[in-house]
Amino acid sequence: MDRKNFLETLKKKILLLDGGYGSEFIKRGYSNIPAELLNIMHPEVVYQLHNEYIEAGADIILTNTFSANRKKLKELKLEDDFLRINSKAVEIAKNAAKDKVLVFGDISSLGEFPKPLGTLEMKDTIEEFYQQAKILYNAGVDGFIVETISDIKELKAAIWGIRKVSSELPLIAHMTFEKNGSSITGTSVEIFANVVNDLDIDVIGINCTLGPDELIDVFQKLSFSTNKPLSVEPNAGKPIYDGKTIEYRMTPEVFGMYVEDYVELGANIIGGCCGTTPLHIKVIKNMIKNRKTKKIYKDIPIMYSSRTILKKYHPFTVIGEKINPAGNNSFQKEIEEFNFEEIIKRANSQKSAGADALDLNIGIEKILNTEHIKHIILELDKYSSLPLSLDIQNVDFLETALIEYPGRPIINSARLTKKDLDKKLEFIKKYGGLLIILAMGKDIPESAEERFQLIQTKWKELEKLGFSKKQFIVDPLVLSVAANYNPNITLDTIKLLSSHNFNTIIGLSNLSFGLPNRSQINAAFLSRAIYNGLNSAIMNPEDSLLMNILKGNQLLDGNLVIENKIENRDKL
Amino acid sequence: MDRKNFLETLKKKILLLDGGYGSEFIKRGYSNIPAELLNIMHPEVVYQLHNEYIEAGADIILTNTFSANRKKLKELKLEDDFLRINSKAVEIAKNAAKDKVLVFGDISSLGEFPKPLGTLEMKDTIEEFYQQAKILYNAGVDGFIVETISDIKELKAAIWGIRKVSSELPLIAHMTFEKNGSSITGTSVEIFANVVNDLDIDVIGINCTLGPDELIDVFQKLSFSTNKPLSVEPNAGKPIYDGKTIEYRMTPEVFGMYVEDYVELGANIIGGCCGTTPLHIKVIKNMIKNRKTKKIYKDIPIMYSSRTILKKYHPFTVIGEKINPAGNNSFQKEIEEFNFEEIIKRANSQKSAGADALDLNIGIEKILNTEHIKHIILELDKYSSLPLSLDIQNVDFLETALIEYPGRPIINSARLTKKDLDKKLEFIKKYGGLLIILAMGKDIPESAEERFQLIQTKWKELEKLGFSKKQFIVDPLVLSVAANYNPNITLDTIKLLSSHNFNTIIGLSNLSFGLPNRSQINAAFLSRAIYNGLNSAIMNPEDSLLMNILKGNQLLDGNLVIENKIENRDKL
Ligand SMILES: [Zn+2]
Ligand SMILES: [Zn+2]
Ligand SMILES: [Zn+2]
Repeated sequence: MDRKNFLETLKKKILLLDGGYGSEFIKRGYSNIPAELLNIMHPEVVYQLHNEYIEAGADIILTNTFSANRKKLKELKLEDDFLRINSKAVEIAKNAAKDKVLVFGDISSLGEFPKPLGTLEMKDTIEEFYQQAKILYNAGVDGFIVETISDIKELKAAIWGIRKVSSELPLIAHMTFEKNGSSITGTSVEIFANVVNDLDIDVIGINCTLGPDELIDVFQKLSFSTNKPLSVEPNAGKPIYDGKTIEYRMTPEVFGMYVEDYVELGANIIGGCCGTTPLHIKVIKNMIKNRKTKKIYKDIPIMYSSRTILKKYHPFTVIGEKINPAGNNSFQKEIEEFNFEEIIKRANSQKSAGADALDLNIGIEKILNTEHIKHIILELDKYSSLPLSLDIQNVDFLETALIEYPGRPIINSARLTKKDLDKKLEFIKKYGGLLIILAMGKDIPESAEERFQLIQTKWKELEKLGFSKKQFIVDPLVLSVAANYNPNITLDTIKLLSSHNFNTIIGLSNLSFGLPNRSQINAAFLSRAIYNGLNSAIMNPEDSLLMNILKGNQLLDGNLVIENKIENRDKL
Repeated sequence: MDRKNFLETLKKKILLLDGGYGSEFIKRGYSNIPAELLNIMHPEVVYQLHNEYIEAGADIILTNTFSANRKKLKELKLEDDFLRINSKAVEIAKNAAKDKVLVFGDISSLGEFPKPLGTLEMKDTIEEFYQQAKILYNAGVDGFIVETISDIKELKAAIWGIRKVSSELPLIAHMTFEKNGSSITGTSVEIFANVVNDLDIDVIGINCTLGPDELIDVFQKLSFSTNKPLSVEPNAGKPIYDGKTIEYRMTPEVFGMYVEDYVELGANIIGGCCGTTPLHIKVIKNMIKNRKTKKIYKDIPIMYSSRTILKKYHPFTVIGEKINPAGNNSFQKEIEEFNFEEIIKRANSQKSAGADALDLNIGIEKILNTEHIKHIILELDKYSSLPLSLDIQNVDFLETALIEYPGRPIINSARLTKKDLDKKLEFIKKYGGLLIILAMGKDIPESAEERFQLIQTKWKELEKLGFSKKQFIVDPLVLSVAANYNPNITLDTIKLLSSHNFNTIIGLSNLSFGLPNRSQINAAFLSRAIYNGLNSAIMNPEDSLLMNILKGNQLLDGNLVIENKIENRDKL
């Protein structure tokens, strides 16, 4: 079943996943043997459990390969059996499935996070997932599921590794969250959705950690954060440790009581994780057999994120401009020497001053290499927390940053030349992100009308390619008034763009380059630009005049918003 | 010759005034007798001099009444001859004129300034001029000249006193200035023009103090500051004191060398003041006999003034809002008790902060009387210096303020009801001033379009009545957003008004009344309003956020102005 058919099926019916494997093998007496080794040591045990899940009603069974990645097998000194364990797992599942149910290759954590939370390089992380996925694919799985992931970068690596093997099979992407809606690495379920919404997967979901009673709140947050099909696999309640083993004691009947809630929140795929049994699956089957999926389109605001911070782009995004060593020789020198203290200092001071995101504009790209970029992203992930705007010219450097960046970045920027735009579009399709497009091709159009028409024409092409306006921010371009530039060109372009629902951004400080009283000029211009519809600016958040005038504008518009809402209500 | 004919004549030819009288009488041996007394003691001497000036070519002779006002005659114990001296002067002049030249009644200073620089009440000052003018009028003068005045309030009083007698005779109004262009009371020739341009006179001019060589610079300033017909009477050079008498030694020939310069600057009437003789007048006659008047229309910016400060209304006028005791009981109490310290303190602190003018909004008008208003204006004239915006509701109070105010005030404000507007129009015609009109009649129109249309309709009526747009500032009205007011109504009204060349003003602080973060909201709104064309605001100049954003807007627009000018030049 290809992706398109799979997604069509999901529109019509709720698919049933299977339940626990590891916990079930232990109950069945195989606590002393790694679950994955059963594939080659006791294939009949695995087959039997698959069969029971199929008989309970599962539409999709997962291969017994949850911990069968090369990294984990190596720790068990089983790396030599890597190929056999995985390909055998698929064989067993397919034998049980008999082409009546789907077999999805099960992939989970490598047991070690990518940097900076762990020691793995992203390149190696992707490679590990790629190697396992390739075996599963060659053995004939119908799709993939990545589940029980705690680190957003590991999830991205798994998706990229799997998609390197095949872009034609369905892919379900799960993370696991605590009761508060946050993973143990600090990424919230909303950030997970924000990141994964951009990526090339088919179903987004959560599993493990919590029983259906506690997981429902997390699932609700997820449901409100995505328009992708949803999947969920709760555990059979809280894990209870009796001194020897961990047990899950929620009965199938109690478990079943929550199924309706998940369906109401739009679940497209439901199964069970740790502690769930064929009986649990059977109960779910009974609950969903007459249910259609409930599809609600959610108007999700434009957001961007770091590992731990999610920000709405509207009404206004302040992007701090100060991680920019232009004209500062010692700052440049430090960066060249892999000393990123000043970067971290500026990141944190801009955050304190009220920045929503940080523009990373290192310049001096000619004297740096991809290692510099990688380390800067890692350091910022570790010692700072705001989302980044990746203001990087060199495409290799930008790709490095996109691979290392944990959240959903702003990408700054693409010109409307075929070469530059095509590359950046490829990047946002593969890596995600909110792309800034400049209202210029090789040259900058003189007038506002020309800049707008350039964008409008290009947008029609992008729309045909399936892109959404929400994926882009348009920079109408601000030049220095000291160089005789008429700032009304930018202001008029903003007005045209915003009246056509384009998101807009400016590099504010360019305006006053070379002038005295820059802060005052910038503040006045910012105010006018916001009045014309501007939604974001790369600016100095430590300039209190700017921040005050911004706040005033927001308060002023906030009042308008409230009023409009009241008016709309009256009309209903 | 009525005013209309007189002005028509001035368009065609340069009229010649006569020369000195007092200085000439002394030379002729009458140094021991007051010049005015000659009218009744030696009328033949006065007649003879008139005749000599007529023979020299004068088109207008002045009655020998320069110091014949009641106040000055009283000091000479000649008050009983007040009527006789003045009426006889007219009789002598008319006998000499024989209906071939014009006889203008000559009026000058009372010898004591009105308050606050002197001790006279404005009421009494006006009355003195009225009494002298009435005699001259009844005796049959063809017009009036007020000359050698040093105090702008005395000049106003003279004009109002004369116009109380007749509004049908031509009136020439002069002040006298030092070489630096300033009168001894601190009023510049530009302020003099700013004030007198509004008043009901026919010709504006300067005389005395300087010879034609030094007076030319002052005259040039005057010429650039008015579109009224111009007159000038220089002295015969610098006064030279030889220990006994003052002499003026510039020869007629040297004097004559400068006449061409005055003609080139647009002089319509030329004569001589102290020390000039019939020979000087004859030389002038020869210089001008073949000359036409040179009329250049000057596009004079809108300005307002105090006694000593003249301000351009554009690009932006900051009117300090803080002389307003609303909600401040002790401040109110002090005013009621004629203690104006707080008013002066606030006037000066707002000036230091950068205000261009001060709104005088005393409120509590029910517990005050005209004496309060009079004293406040006098105190502000004495201890402060910025121009005022007279934000006064009670029309008697407003009239009192207009009589006492030395410069050209802003008048705040008139509603577009017939009663209110008619009264305020009468005031600006009589007393001068820049009138704020509110975009409201009895009620405030809801929409921007309605507000604009109300103003536009009213303006068509005002235009027919001969008013100029430059005499008015329109207040589009700002209400509190806390009361659910949509500030875009005001912003849109400003845009409509400014695109139709109306001057605009707002009471900024109303916007945020009842809200927190007022400064920020006000600053954001101000920026947007300026972008839409706003030229002035009543606001808090001590709010640095407001003043900074204002400066930024001005810098931004300043750059635009420079650019537009360059463009225009290219097109020429
Ligand atoms: Zn689990
Ligand atoms: Zn599981
Ligand atoms: Zn004189």
